[in-house]
Amino acid sequence: MSKVKVAAFSVSLDGFGAGPRQDMQNPIGVRGLELHAWVFKTETFQQMIRQSDEMREMETFQKMTRESGGGRGIDNDFIAASFENVGAYIIGRNMFGPVRGPWKDDSWKGWWGANPPFHAPVFVLTHHARASLEMEGGTTFHFITDGPDSALSKAKAAAKDKEIRIGGVSVIRQYLLSGQIDEMHLAVPPVLLGAGEALFHGINLHQLGYKPVKVVAGENATHVIIKKS
Amino acid sequence: MSKVKVAAFSVSLDGFGAGPRQDMQNPIGVRGLELHAWVFKTETFQQMIRQSDEMREMETFQKMTRESGGGRGIDNDFIAASFENVGAYIIGRNMFGPVRGPWKDDSWKGWWGANPPFHAPVFVLTHHARASLEMEGGTTFHFITDGPDSALSKAKAAAKDKEIRIGGVSVIRQYLLSGQIDEMHLAVPPVLLGAGEALFHGINLHQLGYKPVKVVAGENATHVIIKKS
Repeated sequence: MSKVKVAAFSVSLDGFGAGPRQDMQNPIGVRGLELHAWVFKTETFQQMIRQSDEMREMETFQKMTRESGGGRGIDNDFIAASFENVGAYIIGRNMFGPVRGPWKDDSWKGWWGANPPFHAPVFVLTHHARASLEMEGGTTFHFITDGPDSALSKAKAAAKDKEIRIGGVSVIRQYLLSGQIDEMHLAVPPVLLGAGEALFHGINLHQLGYKPVKVVAGENATHVIIKKS
Repeated sequence: MSKVKVAAFSVSLDGFGAGPRQDMQNPIGVRGLELHAWVFKTETFQQMIRQSDEMREMETFQKMTRESGGGRGIDNDFIAASFENVGAYIIGRNMFGPVRGPWKDDSWKGWWGANPPFHAPVFVLTHHARASLEMEGGTTFHFITDGPDSALSKAKAAAKDKEIRIGGVSVIRQYLLSGQIDEMHLAVPPVLLGAGEALFHGINLHQLGYKPVKVVAGENATHVIIKKS
């Protein structure tokens, strides 16, 4: 059976997986990009940017990559691993974009340009139906309106023997509460967000059977592996 | 002016500084001792235990020290530093003991036996008056009923040029909210408590001017230094 995992998911020291008030200028909420500074410095991410014309031209990504060195150390290994052997993704509406409510048209195609870095089916949890969106490089966005269980069974069918990777604070919270996440790799950078979307607030991970199994100090984040027993 | 600091304060990966349901068997709440496993393994702590007959005989501390090696690495340096140059402590009623409501008598003298490891005045915030309690080795517990500002000014007078160390989740939260803590050293061990006393919940550290300045990987905990700008 496919392993269901969270990988390379950044959480601030005070427990936020995203900043408040997401919009076009703040794809991960206000100051949310600071959570990912450790990612932007990795060679794997730099390569992803170079391969996408649109990402390279987006102001957001330019800002990210300006000071980065493209490192190959521990942080980079974790980023590379997070994309390996993934057969399907499940993400939330907010991770897909800043649009809220019904889709006005089909113009919004994600933050990532014509060739998104997923190269696999991506199931987007939303309350608002929309036709599937086929992008370059093997990424297709499917919009799922009948809930997380339906998304997970579709992702499992699509992933076959490969893994399913879950992203986005509210989506991760839902699958944690239903005990359906097998493993989490969290990255904790030296950032205090102060406000935003709290990843674990009100979720008793211990009671749900989750245990930390490894902590690794990276160059710009501390990596924590948590598994369900 | 005296620096006001939090030092060697353990927080779980999910943000709890103590477990739930504190009582005689669970001085730091249920599973709270797991937060401090990294401390028990340090040589500094082992020496503290050896110097106190009572602590050595308490089942709680015996349990802690059984598997420990008395290490001298990074974790130990942080523990040793946390006791250095401290002129006064401020702690909460819960950290002093499990008794709630008015003091029935003066029999409860803290968890630490006749010679507590503070060797300085300790101001205990409580709603219930009690005479000061002089212990061996320079520790005197003073019970402060007129609030945190009063405790802090008394601690400053007592500490002179030395530092003031603050302990206990609810006391730390009060002094953070009033912006009176200059520096925090938090230790994050690989523990998920799931429930208990959340250290930062509802406190916007960023807005209050706190910034992480250093992260150091210890043997059994990750150490984070946060300073107020």
